[in-house]
Amino acid sequence: MNPIAPPSGVNRRVLLSTLALLPAVSGPLLPVDAPAQTATTAGLLPSWNDGPAKQAIFDFVRATTDQSTPSYVLPEDRIAVFDQDGTLWVEHPMYTQVVYCLERVPAVVAKRPELKNVEPFKTLLSGNREAMAKLSMPDLEKILAATLTGMTVEDFNAEAKNWLEAAKHPRWDRLYTELVYQPMLEVLRYLRDNAYKTYIVTGGGQDFVRVYAEKVYGIPPEQVVGTAGGTKYGYDTSGKPFLTKDPKLLLNDNNAGKPEGIHLMIGRRPFAAFGNSTGDRQMLEWTGAGSGARLKMLVLHDDAAREYAYGPAQGLPDSRVGIFTPALYDEAKKKDWTVISMKNDWRRIFSFEN
Amino acid sequence: MNPIAPPSGVNRRVLLSTLALLPAVSGPLLPVDAPAQTATTAGLLPSWNDGPAKQAIFDFVRATTDQSTPSYVLPEDRIAVFDQDGTLWVEHPMYTQVVYCLERVPAVVAKRPELKNVEPFKTLLSGNREAMAKLSMPDLEKILAATLTGMTVEDFNAEAKNWLEAAKHPRWDRLYTELVYQPMLEVLRYLRDNAYKTYIVTGGGQDFVRVYAEKVYGIPPEQVVGTAGGTKYGYDTSGKPFLTKDPKLLLNDNNAGKPEGIHLMIGRRPFAAFGNSTGDRQMLEWTGAGSGARLKMLVLHDDAAREYAYGPAQGLPDSRVGIFTPALYDEAKKKDWTVISMKNDWRRIFSFEN
Repeated sequence: MNPIAPPSGVNRRVLLSTLALLPAVSGPLLPVDAPAQTATTAGLLPSWNDGPAKQAIFDFVRATTDQSTPSYVLPEDRIAVFDQDGTLWVEHPMYTQVVYCLERVPAVVAKRPELKNVEPFKTLLSGNREAMAKLSMPDLEKILAATLTGMTVEDFNAEAKNWLEAAKHPRWDRLYTELVYQPMLEVLRYLRDNAYKTYIVTGGGQDFVRVYAEKVYGIPPEQVVGTAGGTKYGYDTSGKPFLTKDPKLLLNDNNAGKPEGIHLMIGRRPFAAFGNSTGDRQMLEWTGAGSGARLKMLVLHDDAAREYAYGPAQGLPDSRVGIFTPALYDEAKKKDWTVISMKNDWRRIFSFEN
Repeated sequence: MNPIAPPSGVNRRVLLSTLALLPAVSGPLLPVDAPAQTATTAGLLPSWNDGPAKQAIFDFVRATTDQSTPSYVLPEDRIAVFDQDGTLWVEHPMYTQVVYCLERVPAVVAKRPELKNVEPFKTLLSGNREAMAKLSMPDLEKILAATLTGMTVEDFNAEAKNWLEAAKHPRWDRLYTELVYQPMLEVLRYLRDNAYKTYIVTGGGQDFVRVYAEKVYGIPPEQVVGTAGGTKYGYDTSGKPFLTKDPKLLLNDNNAGKPEGIHLMIGRRPFAAFGNSTGDRQMLEWTGAGSGARLKMLVLHDDAAREYAYGPAQGLPDSRVGIFTPALYDEAKKKDWTVISMKNDWRRIFSFEN
């Protein structure tokens, strides 16, 4: 019944009011560069300013890797989980995957012309921004189902890869895969250098993120946990088997779905968890409920000049889900979770900055 | 609606006619020894006799790890998948997990006395073998649901671990975890030594196998894919979060469910697949449909003296699922899958043999 659930925080107003910002897919297919690696000689976490956030990371790694402490963790138990949107890369003005789905509509309709006069596809193709702004969440779900399911796994991977090699973010005019946070790339690498297995645990689509996670974050497909639908095994006319992406939702990897997804896919409790929104609350809580040293961090978007300011930095009300609400901020303070201020804790945000 | 599905091949007759063989849980808690490791100096795959099966493994590893060949596979892409029951350890006369569930019934009823007079629990507790032999598959499903779900993940893990440290196989009077096939332990180790990531892909319960897979096979929880139910996130009275095992089935990891589960949990096609029954057919087929060198192997149980003989070795009819049927044997021959004869290819079967 329920098609692939949209990531929590797909706010209709945010979604539709930014349609005007969508660039047309154009230009040559640019290669996606691997993120710049920091030379170990340059010091650890060089894109971080000194402060409590950077120190919390160092303290945690020391506490869990120093065999002389009671908080030592065996290498095989070292699991660290990272939300993606807003934690590892830019999530504004719209989740990248939602941009992808909206931009895929013309291609889907070209293959399935019967959709041309069916809502919400008709409105989306009309170019009528006013009508588009009135599309509902069920409309969006129809768009996600049509653009993310019904094709083979291989076709989906190829389509998403092609798109990611060309589509650009309207503000920076750069590939979405370039808009990853350099300080977080350094944390991923630093944890892996200390035998941590790094996982993405995202409300976004598991298959979508797997297309680029290895290249962009150094995280292989099997370490990407996300909102996941089923697949259906079948055969083509020559008898060759293939898997078709099915609209049946298996895991809505948001909120309580994050610890549930971690149990399903990883099978043990993480020692470190990074998020940035209410959708990550239970994941941090679950991580923190384990014994010994546990690292719980939340990225606060408080830098409108270099990235965006939203959530507590803007005093937004609690009713919006999927963002860093004031209530989450209060909870973080109460539970001693570490808040990362993008403005104060990050010396630079993107690898293309100096 | 559907509780955790039983592994395919839970044949009611096999199941119930062997109830008489069940030992009472007794004796001290014996430690589960890690499997003996083969010294590399003793030569590779020492428990294998020379022959086409051993040679197929050597050829495959050479083809995928020698950089000078076109079939070379990058280390990060090296994925090998193994069915468990009948492929890595003994599955007769009954799946170990089913034995566990049946033996857990008294403890479950002690905690939930309202079940005492409810079927099928009443019959199971009666000791009346004749009545027990009449229990149906839906009855068994009720038993699986009652013994595998409704408790926290931690409680389940502790209960299963305790049981596995004491319960013994009726034929050998040894712990179930000792009844793993030494030649397969050597293959797991050999593939890992060649940078293969080894996964279990089992029709059995994912959470059950995870309890011992790291100790017994060197396979960590995150590399165990199995039939999996959901969990439900909640809080105890002190506000501490916990996960409860839910009867809702997420993945029936048998037959077509195996490639589907591999896509969900791993996200890429394996290069090597090992099975022993019709439940593994699609997994081998999916593996074989990839390009380059792919290893597809089926264990044939043809050694009644040292283990069991069933399937084609006994000329059993096709109608029984979950075993190595004559049709599967024919398909293997046609598709050039390698059949491992336990009798001819394995010099020894268990580590406790000389």
